[in-house]
Amino acid sequence: MCCDKGTEEAGPELLAGVSLPAAVLHEAPLAHNLTWMQRFAEAHGARLAPHGKTTMTPALFRRQLEAGAWGITLATAPQCRAAFVHGVTRLLMANQLVGEANMAIVADLLEAGADFYCVVDGAENVRQLGRFFAARRLELQVLIELGVPGGRCGCRDAAQVEALVAAIAEEPALRLVGIEGYEGMIAGGDEVAAVRAYGERLVATVRMLRASGVLESEAPIVTASGSKWFDLIAEAFDEAELREHYTPVLRPGCYVVHDHKLYAGAMADVKARHPHLQDELRPALEVFAHVQSLPEPGLAVIALGKRDIGHEPDLPLPLRLHPLVSQPAAATTPVDISAWRTTHIMDQHVFLAIPQDAEIAVGDVIAFGTSHPCLTFDKWRRLLLVDEDLRVKENLATCF
Amino acid sequence: MCCDKGTEEAGPELLAGVSLPAAVLHEAPLAHNLTWMQRFAEAHGARLAPHGKTTMTPALFRRQLEAGAWGITLATAPQCRAAFVHGVTRLLMANQLVGEANMAIVADLLEAGADFYCVVDGAENVRQLGRFFAARRLELQVLIELGVPGGRCGCRDAAQVEALVAAIAEEPALRLVGIEGYEGMIAGGDEVAAVRAYGERLVATVRMLRASGVLESEAPIVTASGSKWFDLIAEAFDEAELREHYTPVLRPGCYVVHDHKLYAGAMADVKARHPHLQDELRPALEVFAHVQSLPEPGLAVIALGKRDIGHEPDLPLPLRLHPLVSQPAAATTPVDISAWRTTHIMDQHVFLAIPQDAEIAVGDVIAFGTSHPCLTFDKWRRLLLVDEDLRVKENLATCF
Repeated sequence: MCCDKGTEEAGPELLAGVSLPAAVLHEAPLAHNLTWMQRFAEAHGARLAPHGKTTMTPALFRRQLEAGAWGITLATAPQCRAAFVHGVTRLLMANQLVGEANMAIVADLLEAGADFYCVVDGAENVRQLGRFFAARRLELQVLIELGVPGGRCGCRDAAQVEALVAAIAEEPALRLVGIEGYEGMIAGGDEVAAVRAYGERLVATVRMLRASGVLESEAPIVTASGSKWFDLIAEAFDEAELREHYTPVLRPGCYVVHDHKLYAGAMADVKARHPHLQDELRPALEVFAHVQSLPEPGLAVIALGKRDIGHEPDLPLPLRLHPLVSQPAAATTPVDISAWRTTHIMDQHVFLAIPQDAEIAVGDVIAFGTSHPCLTFDKWRRLLLVDEDLRVKENLATCF
Repeated sequence: MCCDKGTEEAGPELLAGVSLPAAVLHEAPLAHNLTWMQRFAEAHGARLAPHGKTTMTPALFRRQLEAGAWGITLATAPQCRAAFVHGVTRLLMANQLVGEANMAIVADLLEAGADFYCVVDGAENVRQLGRFFAARRLELQVLIELGVPGGRCGCRDAAQVEALVAAIAEEPALRLVGIEGYEGMIAGGDEVAAVRAYGERLVATVRMLRASGVLESEAPIVTASGSKWFDLIAEAFDEAELREHYTPVLRPGCYVVHDHKLYAGAMADVKARHPHLQDELRPALEVFAHVQSLPEPGLAVIALGKRDIGHEPDLPLPLRLHPLVSQPAAATTPVDISAWRTTHIMDQHVFLAIPQDAEIAVGDVIAFGTSHPCLTFDKWRRLLLVDEDLRVKENLATCF
């Protein structure tokens, strides 16, 4: 017997034989997104290192690498270890590496042959890394993180960058190979202009560092980009000189399964900025759950909760009703219920406002979409890959 | 190598050798809480079936049963399976059992010898259960759920209860053995009076059902109680007749690790209602994380995020700073930083507002508390049980 809520064996059909709730990946849009973003990056002369923290699903990392990704981006040392164990050899940790136990995880990966990069933004961390990796007789590749005032991590100005370069130069175990940033912290005002300016600042900084001779790399890295403004960063990096003498790297993560609201809106913005862009990302992640109770007119309680699906920035989005009980003959022909609204979510329950005359019964199945996919993946130890007939093709394990 | 963020082997000392962030259970308050709530229930003549969904940690279920618990409450069929696999034989599923795959899980548990109970609140679900368990030649013990208008699941009034009793009577595979409710949905107005009234309604309903001869049990169950108003429910159930002829069951879950805000406040209310109550619950769950970056005066970015710690209803609460780097000689003497404030949380980062003159360095460790423990447990596949010197005694696996 299984000790978590995932299904151990791939079943024949999602709506029969699978314990719900279940997180579901749709095969066709997933395959489409893998190809679409890879082509987008290549069209701009950039490498793709998809952020793996979104999914932490090694079977998706493998598909991203097979589609042509340069490496996988990760957020923590244990995430890097999980990816490496599953065959990812180039790891871009888009965070500071802090704590000796985490440094030890990375040292083990380096000894096992990983091509690992992390970011630095302060002299104290640089000293700690230098001391630790020198003691292990290992060389650590680092990127300077450029931040924005009021933002998250990263050097705020040129003086901080200069001081950091000097600190890195004091540590023989560290090799400075480029610049990293995350434009997703930019908010307020003319965001598009600010993101463009930030991309240009990253490019100018990596050029300045190269000119000053402090970068120990033939093709220094310049990297940024989440899944919202990837087009603006790609454009900032899209220069003949960068294509030839640098390694521009884009790092979107959510693109691989996209979503039904937040990134759907971001995609519409990308399309508006690029009217001739062919096709677009498609939502691939859904969570299926049962109608559990119909206790009052206008209210359906769903057997689904915060333990099963993300609820930020938006509550789960009802998409389709499979009327297994209310109309068994039509159960495989879902009803569009995207006009219905989730009003509340608890640990194990969702409250759905439904029309008074809705044809619905306890035992019917509802497919929900999400707004921002990251916080749905981490609710599951396994996701089900299904084809368009909802046949389960594969169980995909996560490593959270 | 490990493929998730948990530590596979118990290390000697939390602050050295353990990859942070890590979720930590403190041994002494945990042991205290186990005993405290068991004694509280017994003092009121009630059984304790702690809600296992809080922790989904079999090593804690075992401790709860060893402390005297009657059974373990759970929210879903897969949770029941996980508990049963780990030795819990009496399972109270405080939810409707919906979907044939979930019914099949429960049928397997019944065949393996489980003493299983679930709740019903509608005729359609009753028909589905009756048909399924009859086909499996099994008998299913059910409790009628009593809800409140505007609440979650459960019969809203006596007419609904009457109709449900009739529906259950039509299904030979179902055995009606009592009444279930959850007072935690009561909000607004004089909540204490409303919870008391709800407890009395549960008692009156189970008495009415017994008198009408529809309960197939020598000692019918009457059960309710989360971790907020457990005292009021215990009082409503505390009658000589119930002690003798019924099985009153309390189901708090969060009590086992308590918390630093939401339930700390609820405990203060319990103490105010019962000035002579001895001792109280103590917080046992914390998450330890590194200071990752100090990019601007007044801001510390912590290597901790929504993937690691609950952030509802309150952001993570900074408790103590272990100055491993800033004052290495004093690293094991933590500094009280409970006056500091978390201002923002992202998937992998916490923003902490700190005094401009704070003695703090990248690599220092901060212990965070939570407000409502449930949504911290499900972020971890393992928690570390530590003694008061922060030596790791045991790795506790979770089953989410």
